[in-house]
Amino acid sequence: MSIFTKIIAGEIPSYKIAENGMFYAFLDIFPSALGHTLVVPKIEVDKLFDLPANYLAGILPFAQPIATAIQKAYEYNRVNIITIGFEVPHAHIHLLPMNSMKDMNALAKKITITPEALKEVQQKILEHL
Amino acid sequence: MSIFTKIIAGEIPSYKIAENGMFYAFLDIFPSALGHTLVVPKIEVDKLFDLPANYLAGILPFAQPIATAIQKAYEYNRVNIITIGFEVPHAHIHLLPMNSMKDMNALAKKITITPEALKEVQQKILEHL
Repeated sequence: MSIFTKIIAGEIPSYKIAENGMFYAFLDIFPSALGHTLVVPKIEVDKLFDLPANYLAGILPFAQPIATAIQKAYEYNRVNIITIGFEVPHAHIHLLPMNSMKDMNALAKKITITPEALKEVQQKILEHL
Repeated sequence: MSIFTKIIAGEIPSYKIAENGMFYAFLDIFPSALGHTLVVPKIEVDKLFDLPANYLAGILPFAQPIATAIQKAYEYNRVNIITIGFEVPHAHIHLLPMNSMKDMNALAKKITITPEALKEVQQKILEHL
């Protein structure tokens, strides 16, 4: 069972942002920016493009209101998407808020954040969702 | 009219990989890796998450066979997706083939490639599509 499946099942706590029958979204606890969120399908498939067609069709529409809420919560220029996938064999999309091209360089960096601050980020996004 | 709209209209030549009524895919001529492809909606919207719902639902299913062909053509581990979007105000997804985590560091780098080599990449992907 992947760490994401354990998070979805509630066996590992998470700062949940949203879920539906197919997807679960929660804050990355090692964020590159405030509001950095992961969107995970509720089935365990390693690579994004190996997901069934209905998951591929559903993931961005599911992420859309979340991305908009993140953008509004911190007045970001936009929320970008990225997949990497070499660390956890369970496909997921990073929702990465950015203000300019130079935020691309910050991708590999992580910000230090306390559980209290993560809780505040979660509440701020949920207020805009 | 964005540079991508000109490419889609054929006013600027491109190494086309695929198209349908909603999307157009072609090789990035400043690639980070062989097979680096851009997927562009045929409507001009700056930010990915401002696309209409049917475009958000359609873009990954459209990209799926292309990503699979790129992966097969060069035996990559996987094809990742990324949006950046600060240079051209016309939403697009990069299909970025990768073999390991360290390819993330290569993201900002570009490889030097001739038009002849791009033509070969195009043909190799089309053979697997």
